[in-house]
Amino acid sequence: MNKKLVEMSILEFLDELGSDSPAPGGGSVAALSGALAAALGEMVCNLTIGKEKYADVEDEIKNILRDCKKIREELIKLVDKDTQAFNEVMKAFKLPKENEEQIEIRRKAIQDAFKNAALVPFETAKKSFEVLKLAKIIAEKGNKNSITDSGVSALLACSAVKAAIYNVRIYLSSIKDEHFVNDLNSQIKKLEEECETLYRETEEIVEKYL
Amino acid sequence: MNKKLVEMSILEFLDELGSDSPAPGGGSVAALSGALAAALGEMVCNLTIGKEKYADVEDEIKNILRDCKKIREELIKLVDKDTQAFNEVMKAFKLPKENEEQIEIRRKAIQDAFKNAALVPFETAKKSFEVLKLAKIIAEKGNKNSITDSGVSALLACSAVKAAIYNVRIYLSSIKDEHFVNDLNSQIKKLEEECETLYRETEEIVEKYL
Repeated sequence: MNKKLVEMSILEFLDELGSDSPAPGGGSVAALSGALAAALGEMVCNLTIGKEKYADVEDEIKNILRDCKKIREELIKLVDKDTQAFNEVMKAFKLPKENEEQIEIRRKAIQDAFKNAALVPFETAKKSFEVLKLAKIIAEKGNKNSITDSGVSALLACSAVKAAIYNVRIYLSSIKDEHFVNDLNSQIKKLEEECETLYRETEEIVEKYL
Repeated sequence: MNKKLVEMSILEFLDELGSDSPAPGGGSVAALSGALAAALGEMVCNLTIGKEKYADVEDEIKNILRDCKKIREELIKLVDKDTQAFNEVMKAFKLPKENEEQIEIRRKAIQDAFKNAALVPFETAKKSFEVLKLAKIIAEKGNKNSITDSGVSALLACSAVKAAIYNVRIYLSSIKDEHFVNDLNSQIKKLEEECETLYRETEEIVEKYL
């Protein structure tokens, strides 16, 4: 098995990303952006816990820290999962198509691979939205010396949601199952709107302290 | 000397980021986000060069690829530089303050460290804005099979600009030199507005292909 993307050094990952291979691409970067947002949220939680000034919110912040860590782990898995799902699509396209039966098998494999590939960034979008929700509470209740870190966490979580949704949409454009497409389309539309609102609200909190 | 942040694996960097140490923080993440955006732009350039369909724009895309690479290198340096600049501020605060002379030396050292620390994310914001400009041209003229990657590049470049500006502003709030503060404030305000416009324009291009 190849080295996992997240085990690469940042320099190696950037080289791999910039190369002429289409994967890793925007989907993996979306998940990484969400993971960076979660880790920044954890940092602010860690800089809040144990401070007398924030004793009132300590228990809540401890819970948020635990949630951020959990979601960070999930997003880390999605960095590699996104690239694997893309590679599965490419593999399906390479199936033989020499007779009717092969053509039908290939057609179905491609459609299945596209559906699976769309669900991976959808998962990234949902998890990154969770990070954004936590970033807002961290900005509200966490250490104000780190308010810009809470703000950057919200920014990157919001970008991760939007970036992941771009990737869902591009896969949806190749999927024939209308029910699947309509269902996912309405879910990502809702997610994108909620993300925009939540980000603006968090931005307002951060602006108060700048 | 410690290991450079960018030589860490992604997993190590995320652990370091999430720890209870305030550096690396949002400033380094801003620079990393800009570097990820540049690398994604490079990928789309690499997937455009050599394709017959894009022969007309090949020379222009080759130039953009070269520019993206150069800016990526600069942003990579800013990941570590941001954390170092923050640590210099912390060091200045630890200078002795036992007599008038020491207090004055310390006061000046802190102000100098703050100014230097504000200029680092300002550099990150400017470089990331350059990436956004390139991402727009890549979305317009580059390989349309990678349109979402161009979109994610623009998203992350825009977030990098905004995240870096948060960090400039928090340092500016501690700087007494009014001329320095006013000058930087007006420059980042302009940059933020231009970034917002350019991102919307790029988003419109991407939306046409989704």
